[in-house]
Amino acid sequence: MLKIKNIALDTAPDNTVILARDCSVYRAEEFAALKKIEVMGNAKKLLASLIISDDPSVVADDELGVANPAFRRLGLQNGAMVEIAQAAPPASLEAVRKKIAGAEMSAGEIAAIINDIAAFRYSPMEVAAFLVSTANFMTTDEVLALTRAMTESGARFKWDKPIIVDKHCIGGIPGNRTSMIVAPIAAAHGLFMPKTSSRAITSPAGTADTMEVLARVDLTMEEMRNVVESENSCLVWGGHVNLSPADDVLISVERPLRIDTREQMVASILSKKIAAGSTHLVIDIPVGPSAKVRSRAEAIRLRKLFEFIGDQIGLILDVVFTDGSQPVGNGIGPALEARDVMAVLRNAPEAPVDLRARALFLAGRVLEFDPELRGGAGRARAEELLDTGAALAKMETIIAAQGETCVSSELGDIAEEITADQDGVVMRMDCFRLGRIARLAGAPMDKGAGIDLLKKVGDKVVKGAPLYRIHSCFKSDFDFASKMAAADHGVTILSQAPPASENSQ
Amino acid sequence: MLKIKNIALDTAPDNTVILARDCSVYRAEEFAALKKIEVMGNAKKLLASLIISDDPSVVADDELGVANPAFRRLGLQNGAMVEIAQAAPPASLEAVRKKIAGAEMSAGEIAAIINDIAAFRYSPMEVAAFLVSTANFMTTDEVLALTRAMTESGARFKWDKPIIVDKHCIGGIPGNRTSMIVAPIAAAHGLFMPKTSSRAITSPAGTADTMEVLARVDLTMEEMRNVVESENSCLVWGGHVNLSPADDVLISVERPLRIDTREQMVASILSKKIAAGSTHLVIDIPVGPSAKVRSRAEAIRLRKLFEFIGDQIGLILDVVFTDGSQPVGNGIGPALEARDVMAVLRNAPEAPVDLRARALFLAGRVLEFDPELRGGAGRARAEELLDTGAALAKMETIIAAQGETCVSSELGDIAEEITADQDGVVMRMDCFRLGRIARLAGAPMDKGAGIDLLKKVGDKVVKGAPLYRIHSCFKSDFDFASKMAAADHGVTILSQAPPASENSQ
Repeated sequence: MLKIKNIALDTAPDNTVILARDCSVYRAEEFAALKKIEVMGNAKKLLASLIISDDPSVVADDELGVANPAFRRLGLQNGAMVEIAQAAPPASLEAVRKKIAGAEMSAGEIAAIINDIAAFRYSPMEVAAFLVSTANFMTTDEVLALTRAMTESGARFKWDKPIIVDKHCIGGIPGNRTSMIVAPIAAAHGLFMPKTSSRAITSPAGTADTMEVLARVDLTMEEMRNVVESENSCLVWGGHVNLSPADDVLISVERPLRIDTREQMVASILSKKIAAGSTHLVIDIPVGPSAKVRSRAEAIRLRKLFEFIGDQIGLILDVVFTDGSQPVGNGIGPALEARDVMAVLRNAPEAPVDLRARALFLAGRVLEFDPELRGGAGRARAEELLDTGAALAKMETIIAAQGETCVSSELGDIAEEITADQDGVVMRMDCFRLGRIARLAGAPMDKGAGIDLLKKVGDKVVKGAPLYRIHSCFKSDFDFASKMAAADHGVTILSQAPPASENSQ
Repeated sequence: MLKIKNIALDTAPDNTVILARDCSVYRAEEFAALKKIEVMGNAKKLLASLIISDDPSVVADDELGVANPAFRRLGLQNGAMVEIAQAAPPASLEAVRKKIAGAEMSAGEIAAIINDIAAFRYSPMEVAAFLVSTANFMTTDEVLALTRAMTESGARFKWDKPIIVDKHCIGGIPGNRTSMIVAPIAAAHGLFMPKTSSRAITSPAGTADTMEVLARVDLTMEEMRNVVESENSCLVWGGHVNLSPADDVLISVERPLRIDTREQMVASILSKKIAAGSTHLVIDIPVGPSAKVRSRAEAIRLRKLFEFIGDQIGLILDVVFTDGSQPVGNGIGPALEARDVMAVLRNAPEAPVDLRARALFLAGRVLEFDPELRGGAGRARAEELLDTGAALAKMETIIAAQGETCVSSELGDIAEEITADQDGVVMRMDCFRLGRIARLAGAPMDKGAGIDLLKKVGDKVVKGAPLYRIHSCFKSDFDFASKMAAADHGVTILSQAPPASENSQ
């Protein structure tokens, strides 16, 4: 047996362990080929990738070096004794091979794959094989089985209420922070809306990143429950509550590969909502030339998939299409987006009208889930709660309940205005490009980095007039963003107003 | 800039580097998300996976720790200064995404992918995405482009001869070491046959492993050239001569995933042959119920793909089908297979007749490539060279020219006979199962480990009679192999002789 030695290396999300080539207990060579081993100690088993060491200062020949993620998951003390063995590849990989060869997977096979993934039995290349094999085609039965398997692989909230509402946007539109307005409206109305959100994956800000400018978001399950029970709502980061561990692993591979299929998106979103205890859900699908969904036909296909799966798993869905032709609000990046959200809640004169209108539309649909409300009255009720300051008051108590944030929300002071290169009318704003520029500027890591839009689609500009301002906290980030904006700033200006038909596309 | 510090960790095939979380030059956080960085030093660029360290004894805050594979490839001294940057994902990944979505890739896109893979710009999960996306379907044009791209990604041999022959078996049949008999016959005849072989990947022995029992096989390109120029032939390990670096990376992912498609096999084999300078090639496709190719229809489909690609790249091919219903010869494992090969070359009475017949058949086809030889005379000429001892003499000079081996060829002395559980006739031998048992017994790592077959298909046995003997060098390996043989020894015995039709299937 080997003594374990924690080595303070961050290899997340991988489990990594280190064995001396001159190990006195095992022949290290035996393990080199497979590169994945099983570590067994005290009834706990863990799969880990193996590095062989020739440096005795890293691991001695009777030790097993254990990097941080594996050490945490193993839950043993330094010096505890473990055994190692060649890890058999997970049996469920056979089903992945079947799928690669073109077959349909059974619900049982999908459940086995998701259980193995949730238990970290798949290496990143094996996860990639599963994702790509299913990216090519997936039947609706497979999507359903995947949704169910992901729901069952993690923790699950139970709330003592008949109706638990939620609202989810499939993403892709910078500045689209409506959840932070919808949640306090719904809660002020008396609906129960416990909201967990993600941090940004490929975008310049997620709802969790933006909320963090205003309050703590890394609440435990218990803390979250307390906030929701006193406030009817919360706006916390889902990463701490282990709702769908398999999905977290899948995302860690989807992100660098930028694989983002409709089927995997539907399974990911709906499994997390069921695990969070939701019963009624509004899904927002923005449609636009630079959005995730680019045509109405595609949006309808996606809506039908959401509806089919929702019906099967017993989730009441209202799927809506929104304008995805340009960013929402003026700010892109956590601090700038938080500024827009609070301006809308405060009914400030500078509040972006598009963010307000969109939040009211979605809040209206959420309120319609209330059986007590007269049909069609949701939008007006939402407006009433916003205009009277009830939503703002609710947001303030939610913020207080979640606790003070410790991140700085100072705007980045390295700034530059990007200007129009001709007279005309702003015709298009490229969501994808503006998101990339804001990310290079430092968002979401630096809360105060991002883009402040000074013009929107339809605005008239003269040559040299500022289109938007880039904010960065660090010179190196600023240079990257500035260079990218110089190459293509993402704003299309036409010298004359476009024909009406093109405008309303 | 950071000082590099070699850390003696074996992370092959990955490039891995380690940065202190408290790095004084870069913000380590910036790099955590992407996990792949670019290391730049002295005009050399390298992509590497990043581990973040919280242990100052591993890397100081002005250092970049560099594990062995990256250190070798970087080619700098300890203490040399490097810069790091976030690595842009390889642009060719866009073509992989296109393929995932169902499109056909252009020759230019495939060349870009293979160049990026050969330059280690793909992470294992990205390689997996490419492999799985093409495993689903690949057009013959894509296979052709892949073959060409892999040929051009590495080194290439040029020989000063009009005809360079070679012989390749697609594998899967234990004991099938005909190359070590065909090469000396061809060389004795006067043909030029510079043979590079692989080590075992998933089998109990590759030709390089078996030849290593008799001679050195890790020759450099220069040493190999010298041997071939004096002997007309050689039998060396291809791993040292960098013929298709992209293929080596692909195989490092195919192996653990056990993805093995016809299209990738054809591109891999033919690209390596072109790079090795071959002009004429015999391809051996064993067909049998436990072989890689299980039916004649499948074999014909594969032959046609080989022929199409061969014609396009200007390689003259002779594709033959052989019996893949049971292992060839008696030994499975490097030392036991080398024993069988030498027995055939020495015309020893105990030489396995099936190995001799098969080698003569294939050697005959290779000799037919000689324009001077009368059509159809190849087989007889091969037999003449074997029977007169000319082939043995050539093998002995090849062995002498390659140099003495330093590995032990002692047979493993932990042995056990596996016996028949009933009277009858040996009906089938499972190539896959016997290969697994020999591998568990320690082959190919321990040259003397493996299986010695005492019966073959068609032999009569009585209950309790030995079927084969397992040899191991280590008790732990022996126990694994013995347990697997006890569960299912892979030999099917029928109590009465089968009807003729089933026998000739």
